[in-house]
Amino acid sequence: MTLVSSLTVMPLKGLPLIHPGDDLAELLVKAAERVGYRFRNGDVLVVGQKAVSKSEGRLVDVGNIRPRKRAEEIARRTGKHPGFVEVVLRDAKMVVKAHEEALIVRTKQGWVCLNGGVDKSNVQGPVNYALLPENADASARRLRSGIKRLTGQNIGVIICDTHSRPFRRGQVEETIGIAGLNPMVDYRGKRDLFGYELLFKNVAVADELASAAELVMGQGREMVPAAIIRGLKRVRFQERAKSLDLVVDEAEDLFRGTL
Amino acid sequence: MTLVSSLTVMPLKGLPLIHPGDDLAELLVKAAERVGYRFRNGDVLVVGQKAVSKSEGRLVDVGNIRPRKRAEEIARRTGKHPGFVEVVLRDAKMVVKAHEEALIVRTKQGWVCLNGGVDKSNVQGPVNYALLPENADASARRLRSGIKRLTGQNIGVIICDTHSRPFRRGQVEETIGIAGLNPMVDYRGKRDLFGYELLFKNVAVADELASAAELVMGQGREMVPAAIIRGLKRVRFQERAKSLDLVVDEAEDLFRGTL
Repeated sequence: MTLVSSLTVMPLKGLPLIHPGDDLAELLVKAAERVGYRFRNGDVLVVGQKAVSKSEGRLVDVGNIRPRKRAEEIARRTGKHPGFVEVVLRDAKMVVKAHEEALIVRTKQGWVCLNGGVDKSNVQGPVNYALLPENADASARRLRSGIKRLTGQNIGVIICDTHSRPFRRGQVEETIGIAGLNPMVDYRGKRDLFGYELLFKNVAVADELASAAELVMGQGREMVPAAIIRGLKRVRFQERAKSLDLVVDEAEDLFRGTL
Repeated sequence: MTLVSSLTVMPLKGLPLIHPGDDLAELLVKAAERVGYRFRNGDVLVVGQKAVSKSEGRLVDVGNIRPRKRAEEIARRTGKHPGFVEVVLRDAKMVVKAHEEALIVRTKQGWVCLNGGVDKSNVQGPVNYALLPENADASARRLRSGIKRLTGQNIGVIICDTHSRPFRRGQVEETIGIAGLNPMVDYRGKRDLFGYELLFKNVAVADELASAAELVMGQGREMVPAAIIRGLKRVRFQERAKSLDLVVDEAEDLFRGTL
């Protein structure tokens, strides 16, 4: 009887509320020490977008935002606050859908998501919202180097956000920023158990890691903004990593024409 | 310093190749004992669709399938084998896309996926494919009751499949069958840290569990067809569960008109 290697997903509890200018890397290292985890080489740290955005001051009072004409027009069509629509549009590459059901944009980073990821939950103030980090890969790199500096350990970092999806009910966590590990595990060209070549399998492990972390993080009042995942066997740690690898352009989307 | 409760994802290695008629529950219980895990109340067992389909004899030699007219027409359009298209159509509720890029259908169970989930990898024989279980919730219930009978433990069961997604590159595991636990954790109507009501958050934890399991299961020659997830806090175990809760119909899909 041998205990084969399992994966552990550890919630980072006990962080204070995050404010603009806070050193998030330091807060995470302290929280990890307090709960007895301590970072180790090969860990993957998954951090919710909200904590990162707050520490970077990416908060906005939409009551103070002056909407341009296009934002006013979309606000009428969608029934949303004009200042809110304005901040969504500022970080958008294109508007994918503007309808009373939903405002969906492709963000400058490439994510297609509801309201461009601009979100109210767990942000103080009735018309205050959190924007996505300006460059979530850069945010992830800063956390990675901050934790390296504080602990000496080389880890991978994922910044995740809650996404609704076509065809399936409910939200899951997906990756919007990455540092230190390859977001994909590519099986293409490898062989299966019977020697047949695998032609399509290219697993978005970064998204699976984000989802695994959410299982201990939660979305409400849990106050668990991050998790450490330990014991990964298949992911490839590498200096250069970019979340853009997870983006599919409209032209190459196999699901083009399905919705 | 207290070790707060973490989640463990344990790979079930050491199963033999699965054949039609095999008692999968028994094979999984034996594998769990061999690696020292043993099932416990409150565990979630995640099993890959391929192992379930094989044990249920859901294998087909598409060379022996006589395509109907519609299958022949779609085979021409997509460049796929006519017998293959025929088996995809037999389990399809509707064809969503039939193009040389991709054949996408909505299965009778409601999943919108490439080739209706009919898949070649890790199936022996050059024109042999595995179909999805006929009713994956029923398959999950059988595994749940089989494991209860053999071990006395009450667990949740998820059957997962590998899905490509719109907008994002690569595949992730998602749930296609469930027993013993609610696939969703619904925050709607609850309050966030600052007392604001959460209006939309309804987390598809079943899909997150499937993705977490894939991190230890793999897709190639790993021979890890299942995983046990232990230490879940938020999911609701319940006798009645259905994967249909994860299906969004075309009419209510927020992403309608975006692809």
